[in-house]
Amino acid sequence: MQAQLIFTNYVSQAIDEIADSLSPSGIFVIVDVNTESFVLPRLQSFSTAVSKAKVITVKAGDMNKNLDALQLIWRKLTAEGCTRNSLIINLGGGMVTDMGAFAASTFKRGVRFINVPTTLLGAVDASVGGKTGINFNNLKNHIGVFAEAEAVIISTTFFSTLTPQELYSGYAEMLKHALLSSTDELAALLKVDVTDIDPDALLALLEKSVMVKKGVVDLDPTDQNIRRALNLGHTCGHAFETFAMERKSPIPHGYAVAYGLIPALVLSNMIEGFDSELLHSVAAYIVKHYGAFDFSCDDYPRLLALMGQDKKNKVAGQVNFTLLKAPGEPVIDCMVDDDKIKAALDITRDFMGI
Amino acid sequence: MQAQLIFTNYVSQAIDEIADSLSPSGIFVIVDVNTESFVLPRLQSFSTAVSKAKVITVKAGDMNKNLDALQLIWRKLTAEGCTRNSLIINLGGGMVTDMGAFAASTFKRGVRFINVPTTLLGAVDASVGGKTGINFNNLKNHIGVFAEAEAVIISTTFFSTLTPQELYSGYAEMLKHALLSSTDELAALLKVDVTDIDPDALLALLEKSVMVKKGVVDLDPTDQNIRRALNLGHTCGHAFETFAMERKSPIPHGYAVAYGLIPALVLSNMIEGFDSELLHSVAAYIVKHYGAFDFSCDDYPRLLALMGQDKKNKVAGQVNFTLLKAPGEPVIDCMVDDDKIKAALDITRDFMGI
Repeated sequence: MQAQLIFTNYVSQAIDEIADSLSPSGIFVIVDVNTESFVLPRLQSFSTAVSKAKVITVKAGDMNKNLDALQLIWRKLTAEGCTRNSLIINLGGGMVTDMGAFAASTFKRGVRFINVPTTLLGAVDASVGGKTGINFNNLKNHIGVFAEAEAVIISTTFFSTLTPQELYSGYAEMLKHALLSSTDELAALLKVDVTDIDPDALLALLEKSVMVKKGVVDLDPTDQNIRRALNLGHTCGHAFETFAMERKSPIPHGYAVAYGLIPALVLSNMIEGFDSELLHSVAAYIVKHYGAFDFSCDDYPRLLALMGQDKKNKVAGQVNFTLLKAPGEPVIDCMVDDDKIKAALDITRDFMGI
Repeated sequence: MQAQLIFTNYVSQAIDEIADSLSPSGIFVIVDVNTESFVLPRLQSFSTAVSKAKVITVKAGDMNKNLDALQLIWRKLTAEGCTRNSLIINLGGGMVTDMGAFAASTFKRGVRFINVPTTLLGAVDASVGGKTGINFNNLKNHIGVFAEAEAVIISTTFFSTLTPQELYSGYAEMLKHALLSSTDELAALLKVDVTDIDPDALLALLEKSVMVKKGVVDLDPTDQNIRRALNLGHTCGHAFETFAMERKSPIPHGYAVAYGLIPALVLSNMIEGFDSELLHSVAAYIVKHYGAFDFSCDDYPRLLALMGQDKKNKVAGQVNFTLLKAPGEPVIDCMVDDDKIKAALDITRDFMGI
């Protein structure tokens, strides 16, 4: 079963319609301390379903997407009498929707749930694909299942409380989806500044972006092959993200992806003939809005080691990249030599002016 | 995807054939301390796949089917390099197959697994249906998912190390399946003493029994309606089991089910016209092989309270039973008044001579 995707800026109404159609025996809403303060009160005022739901609050932040928080959710669901006929509403960023969906999927072997992402990153990245889970043993999303929500309600109304950094972070994944879609889609996004766009216009862009991901996921629901196209920008991106964490100046995931898109497109240009002018426009857009990620050639060995560690990239001596022939034409499983990667990192630093 | 069911007394060969066909990147075998001592060594000698598998051992017993043991499994799988292309072999009773399958299903969002039940109860009860999970917060199987094994290898070769009590415990579920199947099936089982039967003859009976369960489960994989037929005998059975635990003289699950079948058939006779002579044969068989379960009419209020607590039975003032019109003709969701239940318990005590 695929989750129903609902793009709307009338969220309370959408939640109530779905809750009515499912006639659950009880309703639970899982929030973190942020969405509890900034999002929940309004929904409690306007949505009948949310107003009568029992609220379960977890700490915010990816470091709390762990077994302790999961147990807290399971215990509260038990104490408050959640049954197999109940409905769980996950209201928050990807951390809340990933963990809440995993809690729901494993409680009494599965309680129905809907996701209401409240961040742009959550809306564009975590809303389709059925990936649920928690971090474990310092490994991200190490424990989880594939499980589909009854519905995902995608809205831009919550984004007014997001910082510019959070908006850009989500927009990086939209750029990635546009690159996987078409030249026109990409051109449309490169014209926009996500911190200065009307919510309905953003919702329209968001819908197109989510549908790109949905198209890929539908072809490969359990992540066996073509879904790796979505890994575009993530091979270097994850390495940048971990590297930044190691030197104690962490960067948001979306920024890491944005920075990672540059070497991925450089390699796409070198290996797959991706258009040079397009590469320059994307790189310029990223540097303008995301700034530069500071690293030197002394950092290459560590970055290369980190690229090889990613669980999707393990082949001796080479690193597995998703590249592009052109917008909309991904090539998965490109094995790239270290020398080429170093050259791409050199060019990336040139683009960034560092 | 349905698990492939393989009935064979050539287990090593069956494991190797499946392992070959799946070409996993690594093999892990999960055992408890009992199967590690009594079953694993022989398979390590005769099965290539098992001989090269990394072994993960958990403590034995249902009280250890918990989050601590699950974490231990997840940690060892991580430390030993289990990937999404690995294969996990769960070798043990229902405790090992339930928890091992849950660990596999949630590790990196799903690693393939095969179940090799080593007890009669595990073979007849836990081998089909895709129910995986652990106990949590003192609630049985409270956390889990539905997930299908690649294959379940069902054999009677392991049963020579089982005690008579363990054999009878599993046989109770076979009696239940026969009652859900046909008068002939039931008659065949009532002729047998499971502690004194040739392994190949038992395998043939076991295959028929498992296929009865499979037939029901296939109609209702996620336990929404007709699968409740499998609850026959379990409403009183669970109450007996918990009651026995409360008074510190626990009885095996299968014994509780056997005892629970008697009042279920008495009620079936009273309400649905189940044949009186058949009721007497089944009750006589159970009393002969399982002995009597000692309780008095002073215990009825507690037993009734326990019947109402079962998560499948919650309707105010009445208890939900699965009854039979005749062998092979279950009636689910029969709401039975306390007075009728008390009368059935009286008759049950008569059968037991207590």
